[in-house]
Amino acid sequence: MGKKYAGVDIGGTTVKIGILDEDGTVIDKWEIETRTADGGVNIIPDIADSLKNKASELGLVLGSDIVAAGMGIPGPVRPDGHVDVCVNLGWTDLNPQEILSGYLDGLPVKGGNDVNVAALGEMWAGGGKGYDPVVMIAIGTGVGAGVILNGEIFTGFAGGAGEIGHIHVNDDETEICGCGGRGCVEQYASSTGIGRLARRALAADDRPSTLRDYKDIAAKEVFDEAKKGDEIAIEVANRACRYLAVAMQSVAMTIDPETFIIGGGVSKAGQYLIDMVRGYYDELTPISVKKADIVLAKLGNDAGIYGASRLCMQI
Amino acid sequence: MGKKYAGVDIGGTTVKIGILDEDGTVIDKWEIETRTADGGVNIIPDIADSLKNKASELGLVLGSDIVAAGMGIPGPVRPDGHVDVCVNLGWTDLNPQEILSGYLDGLPVKGGNDVNVAALGEMWAGGGKGYDPVVMIAIGTGVGAGVILNGEIFTGFAGGAGEIGHIHVNDDETEICGCGGRGCVEQYASSTGIGRLARRALAADDRPSTLRDYKDIAAKEVFDEAKKGDEIAIEVANRACRYLAVAMQSVAMTIDPETFIIGGGVSKAGQYLIDMVRGYYDELTPISVKKADIVLAKLGNDAGIYGASRLCMQI
Repeated sequence: MGKKYAGVDIGGTTVKIGILDEDGTVIDKWEIETRTADGGVNIIPDIADSLKNKASELGLVLGSDIVAAGMGIPGPVRPDGHVDVCVNLGWTDLNPQEILSGYLDGLPVKGGNDVNVAALGEMWAGGGKGYDPVVMIAIGTGVGAGVILNGEIFTGFAGGAGEIGHIHVNDDETEICGCGGRGCVEQYASSTGIGRLARRALAADDRPSTLRDYKDIAAKEVFDEAKKGDEIAIEVANRACRYLAVAMQSVAMTIDPETFIIGGGVSKAGQYLIDMVRGYYDELTPISVKKADIVLAKLGNDAGIYGASRLCMQI
Repeated sequence: MGKKYAGVDIGGTTVKIGILDEDGTVIDKWEIETRTADGGVNIIPDIADSLKNKASELGLVLGSDIVAAGMGIPGPVRPDGHVDVCVNLGWTDLNPQEILSGYLDGLPVKGGNDVNVAALGEMWAGGGKGYDPVVMIAIGTGVGAGVILNGEIFTGFAGGAGEIGHIHVNDDETEICGCGGRGCVEQYASSTGIGRLARRALAADDRPSTLRDYKDIAAKEVFDEAKKGDEIAIEVANRACRYLAVAMQSVAMTIDPETFIIGGGVSKAGQYLIDMVRGYYDELTPISVKKADIVLAKLGNDAGIYGASRLCMQI
């Protein structure tokens, strides 16, 4: 029987866990609640218990059949696995990979930032399979990214690699981004950013628009109405996609990836979004000998368990 | 006696050659003419002859004392050393590393793009010593860059990594860049780009300026007059440095380098330039946990021979 790996994707509400083999086949996957109370002190013991129970149920032995575990953590993770602060889990100043390893009798455990881990998963078994270098951009309430170079997560000097959501793309912005800057691509291409662009456009314009029927507008409403032909929605979608393409152009001029993978909630806009980004990206990269592919993420919510199991194969 | 390495830096006018030992001590260095006539067919044989003569003069044996050679080439180089076109040398479709190796009885030879090789040199023995990742930006008539990750040159999927001069930084540009794009940082922060900004500023403004006394204006004149207090020159220098900082911000959000090294002719503006870039860079990177250092290149015209000798140590 081949070696098995546990992939653990810790979110603020649920922890997704999978047991995978070396070639990426999912043997089993399940979810448990993330108990964030009391500084998140139960999260790691809960994961350990759940893994032990599942291993026993499957007739697998932790340490001999399941040889390592990987974890995706929703916040910054130092190269040695240390987490200074993880707001969503209530964690402060701990090393979850050491703690989990302790609960699992010294099983090798490796932790990484969840977006980086998801990028690794997509590169290994999803939309970026066979590509290298790969940059996965996860577009949801924010814009995050994972950079995969030579098959491994690249975090840069102080973990700041992949902060693509904060690439500066507009000198004229007056509102301040969550990071403290002004004109970050996240202010235009995240779900909330697209909503903000839409509200600005509606306020500045008297044309009728089906977007005016919504009380709350975010990316979904804009792309839905754009696909139906609403003029203002089409303009807003184009504006968001152009800003995203500008940020991607900078990434390409820096590391020349083979492929960009677009994931996260906003990527549900699908090929319509990809085609729009593609047009602006091509226009902005006349210098590129070989233009990067731009593809949709494929693994959805499972990217984390794939990436986490891949991560611990690289210990 | 420790191993020796030959570092060859091929320019359009001269070839700089050095023999270095493993810790970066230069045993000897010299220059020969670059004979670009007849499709540059003499360049590699000239280098081979010169290396053989020098080795014999120094009592060193090629193959046992000098164990490898590296080359910096002023154009794109494929990972296997192949050069499709090198305009400055007259080369078309050849593999100079294989040819030089052939002339040197099979000595291992490795070629790379000259800016990448200079970046490796600065990282190994110059302004970036001890830092990793490092990005060296060479600012002359153009803006080029070399990206060093994990101690080695990173070229990306199709050799496009480090094309930082073509990062898009201005949506309002009307003139076309050499690459075919509009609004590339090279249009503002290269020596000629800074001259262009100055001419635009002088044309748009009636204030007296010592810049008006020059027939030709490029980076040197702008920085010289800015340092003497000329208002328009100061504004132009600031505008150029801010655009450069915007491009560097994108690089930082992508790969989070420990250090940026600024080299090339424009870097002769020295600490004045660095301080100005630093100010804008800091303003643009509130998110960075650890802001990258920004330092001047130290090796000047010798960066290529250092980098080339380092490159062939990594074969």
